Amino acid sequence: MKEKLTHIFNRLWPINRSITGPGFRESLDILSEIIPMERIYFKSGSHVFDWTIPDEWIVHDAYFIDPNGKKHAEFKKNNLHLLGYSIPIKGKMDFAELRTYIFTLPEFPEAIPYRTSYYHKNWGFCITHKEYENLPDGIYDVFIDTEFKKGFLEIGEIVLKGESEQEILFSSYLCHPSMANNELSGPLVLTFLYDYVKNLKNRRYTYRFVLAPETIGAISYLSIRGMHLKEKLVAGYIMTCLGDNRKFTYKLSRQGNSIADRAAKIILRDNCEHHIIPFDPGNIGSDERQYCSPGFNLPVGSLMRSMYGTFSEYHTSLDNVNFISFDALVRSVNIYSLIVNAMETNEYWENTVMYCEPQLGRRGLYPTISSINKNHYLKDLNAAMLWLLNYADGDHDLLDIADISKHRYDVLIEASKKLSEAELIKKKYASE
Amino acid sequence: MKEKLTHIFNRLWPINRSITGPGFRESLDILSEIIPMERIYFKSGSHVFDWTIPDEWIVHDAYFIDPNGKKHAEFKKNNLHLLGYSIPIKGKMDFAELRTYIFTLPEFPEAIPYRTSYYHKNWGFCITHKEYENLPDGIYDVFIDTEFKKGFLEIGEIVLKGESEQEILFSSYLCHPSMANNELSGPLVLTFLYDYVKNLKNRRYTYRFVLAPETIGAISYLSIRGMHLKEKLVAGYIMTCLGDNRKFTYKLSRQGNSIADRAAKIILRDNCEHHIIPFDPGNIGSDERQYCSPGFNLPVGSLMRSMYGTFSEYHTSLDNVNFISFDALVRSVNIYSLIVNAMETNEYWENTVMYCEPQLGRRGLYPTISSINKNHYLKDLNAAMLWLLNYADGDHDLLDIADISKHRYDVLIEASKKLSEAELIKKKYASE
Amino acid sequence: MKEKLTHIFNRLWPINRSITGPGFRESLDILSEIIPMERIYFKSGSHVFDWTIPDEWIVHDAYFIDPNGKKHAEFKKNNLHLLGYSIPIKGKMDFAELRTYIFTLPEFPEAIPYRTSYYHKNWGFCITHKEYENLPDGIYDVFIDTEFKKGFLEIGEIVLKGESEQEILFSSYLCHPSMANNELSGPLVLTFLYDYVKNLKNRRYTYRFVLAPETIGAISYLSIRGMHLKEKLVAGYIMTCLGDNRKFTYKLSRQGNSIADRAAKIILRDNCEHHIIPFDPGNIGSDERQYCSPGFNLPVGSLMRSMYGTFSEYHTSLDNVNFISFDALVRSVNIYSLIVNAMETNEYWENTVMYCEPQLGRRGLYPTISSINKNHYLKDLNAAMLWLLNYADGDHDLLDIADISKHRYDVLIEASKKLSEAELIKKKYASE
Repeated sequence: MKEKLTHIFNRLWPINRSITGPGFRESLDILSEIIPMERIYFKSGSHVFDWTIPDEWIVHDAYFIDPNGKKHAEFKKNNLHLLGYSIPIKGKMDFAELRTYIFTLPEFPEAIPYRTSYYHKNWGFCITHKEYENLPDGIYDVFIDTEFKKGFLEIGEIVLKGESEQEILFSSYLCHPSMANNELSGPLVLTFLYDYVKNLKNRRYTYRFVLAPETIGAISYLSIRGMHLKEKLVAGYIMTCLGDNRKFTYKLSRQGNSIADRAAKIILRDNCEHHIIPFDPGNIGSDERQYCSPGFNLPVGSLMRSMYGTFSEYHTSLDNVNFISFDALVRSVNIYSLIVNAMETNEYWENTVMYCEPQLGRRGLYPTISSINKNHYLKDLNAAMLWLLNYADGDHDLLDIADISKHRYDVLIEASKKLSEAELIKKKYASE
Repeated sequence: MKEKLTHIFNRLWPINRSITGPGFRESLDILSEIIPMERIYFKSGSHVFDWTIPDEWIVHDAYFIDPNGKKHAEFKKNNLHLLGYSIPIKGKMDFAELRTYIFTLPEFPEAIPYRTSYYHKNWGFCITHKEYENLPDGIYDVFIDTEFKKGFLEIGEIVLKGESEQEILFSSYLCHPSMANNELSGPLVLTFLYDYVKNLKNRRYTYRFVLAPETIGAISYLSIRGMHLKEKLVAGYIMTCLGDNRKFTYKLSRQGNSIADRAAKIILRDNCEHHIIPFDPGNIGSDERQYCSPGFNLPVGSLMRSMYGTFSEYHTSLDNVNFISFDALVRSVNIYSLIVNAMETNEYWENTVMYCEPQLGRRGLYPTISSINKNHYLKDLNAAMLWLLNYADGDHDLLDIADISKHRYDVLIEASKKLSEAELIKKKYASE
Repeated sequence: MKEKLTHIFNRLWPINRSITGPGFRESLDILSEIIPMERIYFKSGSHVFDWTIPDEWIVHDAYFIDPNGKKHAEFKKNNLHLLGYSIPIKGKMDFAELRTYIFTLPEFPEAIPYRTSYYHKNWGFCITHKEYENLPDGIYDVFIDTEFKKGFLEIGEIVLKGESEQEILFSSYLCHPSMANNELSGPLVLTFLYDYVKNLKNRRYTYRFVLAPETIGAISYLSIRGMHLKEKLVAGYIMTCLGDNRKFTYKLSRQGNSIADRAAKIILRDNCEHHIIPFDPGNIGSDERQYCSPGFNLPVGSLMRSMYGTFSEYHTSLDNVNFISFDALVRSVNIYSLIVNAMETNEYWENTVMYCEPQLGRRGLYPTISSINKNHYLKDLNAAMLWLLNYADGDHDLLDIADISKHRYDVLIEASKKLSEAELIKKKYASE
């Protein structure tokens, strides 16, 4: 997977993506080689809830030339140089005026910042503060060759049917130009997770994968799928910032105790260092702000590694291939796969022997000689069986039992298999 | 305010107050210059719940003379010298007998203790332990010229009507002789808070201010107003020990999560160092013991600075003007005012755009260029707006949102104004 | 009590107990001198829930002889040498074969382990690892003279009637051969606790004492008494590991907040160092695993000192008289007695003066002079009275109030006596 993932990353990297336009479309096409998404189109100018779909934005070129004739902020060298959604401009201006259109990061003088102005007509350049400080006074040539046209905002969507109509959603966004963690990591992990889920046999849940531009894309998507999701969605995750090598971070859904939250917490507890943070609609966030708006209040959390806004490379040219690790991306796919497994196997089991413990020994599920169990795994498995038998009362599902018992979820799964084979437990709900 | 408050303090200071009698009446008259309270009278001998209203107590003079002719415990020098509610006595007695009627504080040898015997006929003197240790043996002249007469226990009460019949109560007690923190601070802060509330335009709540003798006064008051308060009271505070310069202390009501408790907690969190302590009917307490008795269980907490019983000057002559600070008293009025404001502005807001976030940018409520918000206050205000929008679901009031979001209450108020002007939120209950 | 207890311990110690057979019967007879239990019989081969009653097991002799003619693992020297429920065997075998039937504890080379194989036909010897390491190669004589016969599993039971049909259960098990803490301590404490409860005047609750073999005995017992207990039992305790001198351990019942749990927690809080551990059906446990199986879910916890499995002497020959202390056993009886008292005296009191505090002073329940109470116990008692009055609202029982107020339970009892005598509180439920 790592090789394939690296290859796709390299093809996506140079493309100038934005919330609309050819870069987004091209990127979606590349990912569709693996995840064959259908496209949903929203016409420029149409209304989605409180918002209006913007025109498509096309960039041909952009730069400015200093009084000494030196070119700066060349879009063709780095697409972050141009303020996102800049209007076209061509002409001369004094540095005193130009500087009000230049964005830098004085605290990170070697980084080009990433800035956009989607909904307010504006233009601008983003450069390193180091470069900015050496710009001479005088008259500059400014050249931004961009174009706005009526067109479409596009969303990629694919649904993998399962036995149940209940759905699990994975959503990421593809509107950032050349940055690696935020945001190529999300779409990449989503794509390779799709590959995993597609191959699951006897899927219980229906899985929905969505790639859209951030915010306006999620809002557009919810304008057509929101009510359906309100009825069917049991768990969802916004996939973002999954490429760095640090601890995982799980941001709880607004509901806080949905299956999405419970599965993520148990799998992270069992498998990796992590922190859990509360739902927070106020500070910077991603599309969970839309999914968890009060009218929808969907069970959508977000599993990340270092969260947006918490690393200094965030939204700068330093968020590049050196900042991420392909092993970390593969591990992120893996952790998401474990969460899928947890949800697939989570059951309300019912004990068939409710009064006293069943005799496990005569079923070969318990050592016949007392205290002789030296094998740590078998001891653990035996304990997990007893926990499961005791809490298989129809009121606690497997994730609950993993939480109360502190046993690893995978050990409880193994215990449930053995007990189920021995007909000591049965599923409360045959299939939903 | 500070000057006026200091002036009134100085006038009140020398008066010999008790639970009945001329000192209480005179003190109430002085405060009534600012807070024009009506008087409620309870006749001596009448019954209030399990208690009986005592006779009025009038002191003319008191002292004792040692065998060397030296006068001690002169009531006219310090009214703490006389045990509260002492019966009259005149005669000679041996030191061995007299000493059983003398109260001192061996652990604070320079302090005159404050002692009373309201409901058991007795007499006594309170002096410093230092003075006590120098008293010679021999025959003493004892002189206590006090008088008991049928009269009234008095309570001062004033109600400021608001739009709603729901009430907020502020209660303090005025029965202590010359002590500063416990207790002139409470009546003074109540008086100046009245001045603040009186000037509030469009008061939402009805405000009730009560000054009574402690315990018997609160019981008397509840005997006539208890059932009314049980129906109308949404929040109440016992005001006491508000004059020292140390941390605030909030003692929760028995209910523990009333608006009184929630408003106090948020305002203290936002504005000053403090501690929150649980409701406690067992250790020394004040009138919340009556208001929170199980039959009433009113939402009455108590906001203090150093709580009674926790400072060594408590109930001694050292609780004098040097122990308190007039700036601290003004700050106490200010904190109570902020609590009033919090309750006045606390609303259940409802989002008018329940599905996805509204577009704040086009309403001038969000920066048009991404990540460009350097102003700390504006960032905070934006985050507060997003929190408010998300939790304006009709189930969370502003105090709840301040608690969950950890945003300052005043920032949320500002956010609510802006969102309300933009018609993005509306009040769930137009007016109660 | 200590002398009597020591005497009985010494008589019980040498007996070879198992889950059935003459050793169990003889031990029950000895204890019945103090606690005159009735016997309940379960026939070999009969079914109890998912289990089958095993045949009785009788041991005549057992040992093996090494090639040098030296006798080892002599049952007559220590009954732990023989694997519990060993089948008879007589013959010669090579050390290579014999060793697979020998159990040792390499980590405790001086300890003989305790092992059983109740439900799977097997045989074996348990010896110290030190002895094992010196066994020579060669041909051994193996001799196990045991016998299985149809008979009975026996349970001892006695019920002390109280005013109420609601029951409190004390259960322990008597199936371990010569070990001291686990398990002669449990039956001994149960026996002497019986002696205490028997002498209680006007018992409120009905008390049930049960001695059975562990697991199969509890299951058998529940097969005939389970439904009765489900209806009547309000609290129960598995008594085990009560002989060592260390901290108490209370393992919560599955319900977690039953009277059993609340009484144990308050009494331990007030009287001794201890830890509270959650219900845990997974790791090694005792008969609470049966009582708390989901079909019964009885309010049965377990109060121990060092819990089984947490001390290295556990289930070895080192769990002998040197490991325990007779003072500790007496103290264990005492703590259980205090728990019984707590349950007997736990009431829902109701205030007869619900509105405001009653005047305690005129009833002699409060100092007549303010702040004069120097006596620490009286201060505490006064505070406890006020707590009790405030929470005597019919919704909080005395254990609740002990928990909320942090007052000692015995002080609250004293407070309730004084208040009840003064007719300030009355019992909500005259008698159940």
